[in-house]
Amino acid sequence: MAYSTYGRHITMDLREVAFEKLNDVRFLKEVMYEAAAQCGATVVGESFVQFSPQGVTGVLVLSESHLSIHTYPEEGFAAIDCYTCGYTVDPAVACDYLKAALGGRVVGYRALRRGSGAIEDLTTLHLAAANN
Amino acid sequence: MAYSTYGRHITMDLREVAFEKLNDVRFLKEVMYEAAAQCGATVVGESFVQFSPQGVTGVLVLSESHLSIHTYPEEGFAAIDCYTCGYTVDPAVACDYLKAALGGRVVGYRALRRGSGAIEDLTTLHLAAANN
Repeated sequence: MAYSTYGRHITMDLREVAFEKLNDVRFLKEVMYEAAAQCGATVVGESFVQFSPQGVTGVLVLSESHLSIHTYPEEGFAAIDCYTCGYTVDPAVACDYLKAALGGRVVGYRALRRGSGAIEDLTTLHLAAANN
Repeated sequence: MAYSTYGRHITMDLREVAFEKLNDVRFLKEVMYEAAAQCGATVVGESFVQFSPQGVTGVLVLSESHLSIHTYPEEGFAAIDCYTCGYTVDPAVACDYLKAALGGRVVGYRALRRGSGAIEDLTTLHLAAANN
C-alpha cells in the first residue's frame, strides 16, 4: 500500500509567553497531546526533555509526522513546528491550539508544502491559485 | 543564564532513495546519530517508530533542538528536518551527511532563520547581505 507523500509543515515562533508555562514540562506535554488530538493526529511516540537551568523540548511522533516545541522561558520564546503528511490532518489546527494555550504573540509563521516537488510556501501557492 | 534564540531550520526532501535503506530503522538510527555528531550536536532524547507495512519515523532531540526523518520506502521518499539553535551547530552539515548516507536526489530544500523576528529564508537574507 502506498501513502501520499504530500504534507504541510508549519513553523511558528511565539514571544511574550509566560515563563511558568514554558518551563513546565507537564503542562507542555498536556497541551502538545491536546494539540495533536485537536487536529486529529495519532501520537505514536514522544520525547520530552527538561533543560537546566530552564527550557523544555518536547516532540510527539505522529502517524502523520511530528509536532515539536522548544522553549526559552527566560526569553518568553517558543519555537513550534508541526509537519503532517496527507490531506486530512491540518497542522494549522495544532498550531492555533498551541497559540491559544500558551498565549503570547506570533512573531514568525511559515507554512510549507512538502512531498510534491520543491518545498514551497503554501501562502504563495494559494495566492497563485486564487489569481488563476 | 540566557541563551540565544537564533536558530536555523532546514527542511530537505529526498527522492530515489533505496527502499531497503528507508525501511531499516536500525540503519536510520545509526545515520541520524552520526549526522548529529557530524554537526557537533548533542543528542538528549530519541523516538523511532517502524510503521507497517513500511516506513519509519525517527526523531532525535538535541540540546540544540531536533533532527527528524520520515520515510516512504515505497516512494523512495524521505522528509528530513534539522533545527538547531545558536550559531555553532550548522544543520546543513547534518543534512549533507544524511544526503550522502541515504543517496537519492534532493527535490526540496529550504533553510529558514528562526528566533530573530519573522521566519525568513536564509538564502534571501544571504542575497540581501551580499548586495548591501
